[in-house]
Amino acid sequence: MIRIPDAARREIDDALELALGRLRARSAALGESAAALGVATAAAATGGKKLRPALVVAAFESFGGDIAHTPGLWRVAAAFELLHAGFVVHDDLIDGDVERRGVPNVMGAFRERARARGGDDADATTLGAAAAVLAGDLLLFEATRLIATAPVPAPQRAALFVLLDDALLVSAAGELADVEQSIGDDLPPTSSLLRTARDKTAFYSFQAPLAAGALLANASEDQRAALEAAGSEIGIAFQLADDLIGTFGSRAQAGREPGADLRASKRTPLISLAAETEWWPQVASALALAPTGPIAIRDAQRELAASGARERAVELIEATLRSARGRAADASLPRDAVVLLATLAAAVEERIPR
Amino acid sequence: MIRIPDAARREIDDALELALGRLRARSAALGESAAALGVATAAAATGGKKLRPALVVAAFESFGGDIAHTPGLWRVAAAFELLHAGFVVHDDLIDGDVERRGVPNVMGAFRERARARGGDDADATTLGAAAAVLAGDLLLFEATRLIATAPVPAPQRAALFVLLDDALLVSAAGELADVEQSIGDDLPPTSSLLRTARDKTAFYSFQAPLAAGALLANASEDQRAALEAAGSEIGIAFQLADDLIGTFGSRAQAGREPGADLRASKRTPLISLAAETEWWPQVASALALAPTGPIAIRDAQRELAASGARERAVELIEATLRSARGRAADASLPRDAVVLLATLAAAVEERIPR
Repeated sequence: MIRIPDAARREIDDALELALGRLRARSAALGESAAALGVATAAAATGGKKLRPALVVAAFESFGGDIAHTPGLWRVAAAFELLHAGFVVHDDLIDGDVERRGVPNVMGAFRERARARGGDDADATTLGAAAAVLAGDLLLFEATRLIATAPVPAPQRAALFVLLDDALLVSAAGELADVEQSIGDDLPPTSSLLRTARDKTAFYSFQAPLAAGALLANASEDQRAALEAAGSEIGIAFQLADDLIGTFGSRAQAGREPGADLRASKRTPLISLAAETEWWPQVASALALAPTGPIAIRDAQRELAASGARERAVELIEATLRSARGRAADASLPRDAVVLLATLAAAVEERIPR
Repeated sequence: MIRIPDAARREIDDALELALGRLRARSAALGESAAALGVATAAAATGGKKLRPALVVAAFESFGGDIAHTPGLWRVAAAFELLHAGFVVHDDLIDGDVERRGVPNVMGAFRERARARGGDDADATTLGAAAAVLAGDLLLFEATRLIATAPVPAPQRAALFVLLDDALLVSAAGELADVEQSIGDDLPPTSSLLRTARDKTAFYSFQAPLAAGALLANASEDQRAALEAAGSEIGIAFQLADDLIGTFGSRAQAGREPGADLRASKRTPLISLAAETEWWPQVASALALAPTGPIAIRDAQRELAASGARERAVELIEATLRSARGRAADASLPRDAVVLLATLAAAVEERIPR
């Protein structure tokens, strides 16, 4: 989604590997089961696209940050990857997912481990959940520790902690709302679902890493506020595009079965947009059948498109990105920061399945 | 278990309430479901005996710490209560417990909330687990934040972070081992079960808070090492006494059904001690029936006692406490620290059900 220099990418990888290698080594000293937890925890934070660290670094550079005099940059960037990994592990636990990118995740690996030790289904469920809870705890703590001990001036560290504090609470609020909105007969209004997207994803994935980079580059408060507002909108648009991918995207684009969100009856803004149209009764019937198989999924896709919801979702993404670009132009942001936001907005647009 | 001056207790309560009040207020600003999470999370950290904060303060005072010049003391003490609360919430999640002290815990409260919103059993399970994961995350982060931002000199903060880092990892290792040791046909050896007690409970509940208090009082490294070693042993003895309470204690002492550990087929060192005796076949048969009801529980209690395991567990507690007292006497600890350790050892002895 965003390119940063290879040298920067290597620095991030090194900072991350330093943290994860340390975790593996310390775990190994605590016995065989702790060693397995350390390996699985480190694996959960490895191999991702590292979007959030890249955003920290890109924002830092776009505000003219002086890399040679900011040795803490890479640790802060790596911390955002660990934060993301911790959230993903706990999110998978909440959703009951045992795989990620086609291989067993922490929960899946420890379910297998329980079975290999002679455990039954209940043992496997308990051990899988235990390992996922603990791995997420370790990752979230490690993210926090990296920032608490990063070599940055005390006022910057305090400001980073305010960001991190918000990231934990806002993301938790979004995650909880996401679960609650899946319960009961009533479909939540689009505004609530958009707010959940902002809280669950946009804040910690876009707004906070951009703000962290700007902060380390000594951006002014006004500049940071403009960057955060634009970052939040780009994050919401990113999530809306993700919903379109999960609903209409090809297998190649989604990286999983096409229409997975329909199969899982996920309540996305796309669905609530359809509910606001006269076409809703037909859409609702098709959605109710979608979990039954590929043919029903294609029906639901057709009905959603016919209702105009797909088109409206695309318009909503475009409008949100327009607003983000407007904020970038209005504010007294440095030219490179404006370019960064434009690049991110374009990358989100690119992701919309057409 | 340990007395500290009322004024100190009030300072701890104030620091804790400041943190929890802030969490409630910030959650309330994020919408209705976040507000409910904030309330439940704060409640989970309220009303405990605050043993760990008391240990921080008692250790600090026993090393002649200067309270007037250590404004960060109360925050650090409060952080250990938040750490404990976070572990308890996640432990309850792993164990599937929906109550604590006779009232719904976070998981229980959010299961009810799901039902009130028209959710079915699956919805209730998912929402309960989600809330418990997130509440624990918030508490563990808040513990970390209090220490990261406490007004203490930088070298002390760094040393506190090393302690906290160990507390997170060692406790996770103990929690995971506890679950793994319940799986499969083979009863783990007593040495493994004792190690789990040390990792899961003794480190974060005794060793780390005592070390934190000593550290804030500028104890020497040697003194801290002696205190930590003795604290670890007192913590193990505490857990062994707790196992005796959960197996043989009265309803009044256990605060729950007598023999709850037997009903839950918990693999404690008490059980593995019985397995090392010739009486084991009879004990094993009685234990297998214990989950069926109160009469079978009384049988299992009788067989365990007849095997000599109960007596051996008491001896093990006495020997562990003797070793802790020996360490206290050997080392160059200040007189008050020796008295503190002796007081703690005596309090653990007092808890042994006779």
